[in-house]
Amino acid sequence: MSAGINTYKTDLREIFFTLFEQFGFGQVAGQAPFDAWGPDEAKAVLQETYRFAKDVLGPLNSSGDREGCRLEGGAVITPKGFKDAWKKLYEQGFKTVAVSPDHGGQGGPIMLQVLIEEILSGANSAFNMYPGLAFGAAELIAECGTPEQKKLYVERMLNGTWGGTMCLTEPHAGSDVGAAKSTARKNADGTYSIRGTKIFISGGDHDLAENVIHLVLARIEGAAPGTKGLSLFIVPKIRVNADGSLAGSNDVSVGSIEHKMGIKASATCVLNFGENDGCVGELVGGIENVGMSQMFKMMNGARIAVGIQGVALASAAYFNALEYAKDRKQGAHLSKWKDPSAPRVAIIEHPDVRRMLLEMKAHVEGIRALIVKLAMHTDKAQMLAGKDDDQSAYHRGQVELLTPLVKAYSSDQAFRLCAQAIQVYGGAGYCQDYPVEQYTRDSKIFSIYEGTNHIQAMDLVGRKMGQAGGANFQQFMADVGGFIEAHREHKVYGEAVKQLAAAQEGVMASAMAVLGWSQDPAKMTLIPLSANRFLNMMSELAVGWLLLDAAIIAERLGEKATGDEKAFYEGKKWSALWYARNVLPNVEQAARMMALEDTSSVEISNTAFGSI
Amino acid sequence: MSAGINTYKTDLREIFFTLFEQFGFGQVAGQAPFDAWGPDEAKAVLQETYRFAKDVLGPLNSSGDREGCRLEGGAVITPKGFKDAWKKLYEQGFKTVAVSPDHGGQGGPIMLQVLIEEILSGANSAFNMYPGLAFGAAELIAECGTPEQKKLYVERMLNGTWGGTMCLTEPHAGSDVGAAKSTARKNADGTYSIRGTKIFISGGDHDLAENVIHLVLARIEGAAPGTKGLSLFIVPKIRVNADGSLAGSNDVSVGSIEHKMGIKASATCVLNFGENDGCVGELVGGIENVGMSQMFKMMNGARIAVGIQGVALASAAYFNALEYAKDRKQGAHLSKWKDPSAPRVAIIEHPDVRRMLLEMKAHVEGIRALIVKLAMHTDKAQMLAGKDDDQSAYHRGQVELLTPLVKAYSSDQAFRLCAQAIQVYGGAGYCQDYPVEQYTRDSKIFSIYEGTNHIQAMDLVGRKMGQAGGANFQQFMADVGGFIEAHREHKVYGEAVKQLAAAQEGVMASAMAVLGWSQDPAKMTLIPLSANRFLNMMSELAVGWLLLDAAIIAERLGEKATGDEKAFYEGKKWSALWYARNVLPNVEQAARMMALEDTSSVEISNTAFGSI
Repeated sequence: MSAGINTYKTDLREIFFTLFEQFGFGQVAGQAPFDAWGPDEAKAVLQETYRFAKDVLGPLNSSGDREGCRLEGGAVITPKGFKDAWKKLYEQGFKTVAVSPDHGGQGGPIMLQVLIEEILSGANSAFNMYPGLAFGAAELIAECGTPEQKKLYVERMLNGTWGGTMCLTEPHAGSDVGAAKSTARKNADGTYSIRGTKIFISGGDHDLAENVIHLVLARIEGAAPGTKGLSLFIVPKIRVNADGSLAGSNDVSVGSIEHKMGIKASATCVLNFGENDGCVGELVGGIENVGMSQMFKMMNGARIAVGIQGVALASAAYFNALEYAKDRKQGAHLSKWKDPSAPRVAIIEHPDVRRMLLEMKAHVEGIRALIVKLAMHTDKAQMLAGKDDDQSAYHRGQVELLTPLVKAYSSDQAFRLCAQAIQVYGGAGYCQDYPVEQYTRDSKIFSIYEGTNHIQAMDLVGRKMGQAGGANFQQFMADVGGFIEAHREHKVYGEAVKQLAAAQEGVMASAMAVLGWSQDPAKMTLIPLSANRFLNMMSELAVGWLLLDAAIIAERLGEKATGDEKAFYEGKKWSALWYARNVLPNVEQAARMMALEDTSSVEISNTAFGSI
Repeated sequence: MSAGINTYKTDLREIFFTLFEQFGFGQVAGQAPFDAWGPDEAKAVLQETYRFAKDVLGPLNSSGDREGCRLEGGAVITPKGFKDAWKKLYEQGFKTVAVSPDHGGQGGPIMLQVLIEEILSGANSAFNMYPGLAFGAAELIAECGTPEQKKLYVERMLNGTWGGTMCLTEPHAGSDVGAAKSTARKNADGTYSIRGTKIFISGGDHDLAENVIHLVLARIEGAAPGTKGLSLFIVPKIRVNADGSLAGSNDVSVGSIEHKMGIKASATCVLNFGENDGCVGELVGGIENVGMSQMFKMMNGARIAVGIQGVALASAAYFNALEYAKDRKQGAHLSKWKDPSAPRVAIIEHPDVRRMLLEMKAHVEGIRALIVKLAMHTDKAQMLAGKDDDQSAYHRGQVELLTPLVKAYSSDQAFRLCAQAIQVYGGAGYCQDYPVEQYTRDSKIFSIYEGTNHIQAMDLVGRKMGQAGGANFQQFMADVGGFIEAHREHKVYGEAVKQLAAAQEGVMASAMAVLGWSQDPAKMTLIPLSANRFLNMMSELAVGWLLLDAAIIAERLGEKATGDEKAFYEGKKWSALWYARNVLPNVEQAARMMALEDTSSVEISNTAFGSI
């Protein structure tokens, strides 16, 4: 696309359905601590966000991709227009809807914020990473910092004065974070001298804000090896005084920026800390050797953010493909295929194009529902904390359990669906005249950063399934089971609900298999071999459930609807039925495959993979 | 990658296995019409091709991607180094191994040529399109041209003097070729004046050869609408005299070139013919209104070429990922996961990395086998023509039947597997320092051009399945059935062969369902809705079969092998078992899904897809 043309599209009606009709925004709206936020306020901010996305961020998406970032005199220059967009973003307050008023935020629910983020990322995924990373870093300081740290950093990082990053990865420590070699040496004044190199740092430097606050994992001299010996430091690019004024260079330099397949407008940096022994950091919260657990508190948020990026691009790809399919004429209708004089029809009339579009629609809606559900659990856990500890724990548990599903399933599907959008366009989709090829390139990274999808899968089977003595998983399964019992004989959805039940049985059987393997050293290797498949099965179960749930809600609401509203509710039915008939059966089959206990991949010798 | 560094890798041992050990090159080698080609000659040319790929084409792959093509003064300039590579390619004769000596070729079998092409495309997919398209156009003239046309054009297009293209697509006629609006008006001298615009013309212009010979589909004034009224014309960029000397401009101009996701070094042109009424073409073979059937004669070749491009990039991605996985150290072995002082291991030691690699290995080997099998049928059909008509017809029928499988399955899997290679690398794979992100971008077009994969699927279910009264399909199924009967009780592969049998039953049941739908107007729409799924099922059946066939051959040959040879044969076992346990079961399940006769995609209203 040429610069300056918006290509972002969504359907707010669908977003409103998910928020208000499926997940009962009213149950959290207007209640403490979300007193200020009713449905009208939520709708208004979503409409404003969409307007901002179309007017400001969307037009910078392809131009940012073409221009990319560059390194000049040691500083990253972001693409044309980004600085202005950053300023406007913060003026309008879109990033602080769900931030506590203690930090200058608006005290809204997360279930609203995730949809705002979807719109921002959908319009410009690369741009939205800069404020997104600043947000995550600020949240971490808000959660784990000392009172002085909170006062100095948080609000400035949430209002766009300063940016922020998370610095984990090193040249030989990516998935293996504990191998980090960056060091910290305590100084007499209580600060630490930081030395080391971090790579793949998104937004590691930029020209959007006056400073960048890095959160850096490093090992204090003499600390234990592995993750247990890591501490987390606040390391500003430019040193700051206690009053927030800037105090000169902190010896943080940009070694280089990566040339990537996509998200080219997001600067991915190699950062060198303390090359001249002049880099100073302060310990987050003043506690040594708890860096990993501090980082992990924010990890869920970062992973959910990636899940949001996934659905954001898949949805943008869907609506672009839909528009193209309604507009582009080619070929005659199937019933007149052999008549050369038959009128040409829009390609949406061709069954295979409809199949691709409905597949995209169903996935996008189901994954969005999963994300909003997770956010709802976050909000309810917060609302009920101290009031109903059991219920609050239930909600917190679902957040934990669903996070790896949201991160991995959304990102895997996003890449697949964006590529499918190219297929809807045909050759045109492969050209840069349309945004779908960029979405495809941009989305590939989602399955890798913030923990590869295999790490998500291992988090699910190795950690989240067993959390709270397995209660989180059991409660999830009980929720699905309750839905199945309630609707098994439904006149429209009965068959689909039975597919869901079969999928649930598959997931349960595989969960039991995993449990068995974990107790048998000889079979332990089956766990990593099967983890991705299991995560996918459980995600499909969850998405299938939520699509059917949406369809049954829509059936009731649609009874008295007319016109476009009626069509909208009808659309929920087809999303659910398509998914139940075309995806859910795979879950059962995947369970059968897991039961085969195939270990080919570990039995084959390294040499047998081939000689190169 | 920086310019000048080769990243292409393959394993000639595996290529030799497929050619010599699995598909018995000896059965065609040394016999008429392939008298000159024995195993030694075949090995030597493959080794030479690989050397050329590493020395000449591979180093131009990433530099060509970065530089791209440009349009200067109406002419396409290809990336640096391409002209020299073109010259060397033709000097070494790699493109004419399987060309008849009548046209200056070397009279070798196609089963050898397809492997040469795999190596050339794997090293530089964008480059190899230029000679590939010239080859296809030359073949068409050799098959359908008048004696004068053959004499004038064919050899020059096969020895690199002239390039060539196929010009089908127009702005409103892509998949719907019959809607083409280009026109031809007969002149007094028997030539035709051509007018029209063609788009997406690969290699539509370039600076590699002194001329480009376009084959242009156009409608002679007054001819019927649709495909039946199309004729095919030879339209040189520069007019040529009867002796082959050049005679000045033919009014063919390049309107623009596309900016694409990948294959950036292959110029994709908009071509304008006769804007100044000065474009002259000659009718291929001198016969009007048979353009589509002439084009279709070459269509199989073009589609097989795309299948080869797919396996070429998937294989190159596999071997790059394998090398990286053997080299890159990160994390401790699974058995010592929690010990931070445990030695770091190469990532190939991690089960999930091995799973990804074996998945790639199995698919690459199985798809390569399918392509060589198809080529073997081509060769045998030629050998047996006029000697054993029944057998020759059987072989020709298998070529017809397998072509859509090769084109669509290989291209779909290529894109998926190249993206999986990125996942093996992690964040590094997303950067342009490694070739896998380019392979992913390059490969996406394979599912679109030369007939989208849905067109392939419709060709399979609507045309190829019923060809020869269904005999081609029945013979394929009988061949699979014979294998199953012979090996059902095999001590190592018995279980896997039973999976194959279940997959075959699934394919048969679905084929019967398709047949039923084709006779019921109310169910007709299920055919396009299910065609892609059916093509995929049949491809998985074919690939699963050929992998098991390879494994059983390897078991016998491996008995007395030692060292690397033993490991090589062992690798065939794991490819086959992995595929049988992890892919073949999907075929059964897909058959069950087809039996659900889901029509959601056509029942949903256009409005219900969403309001945009």
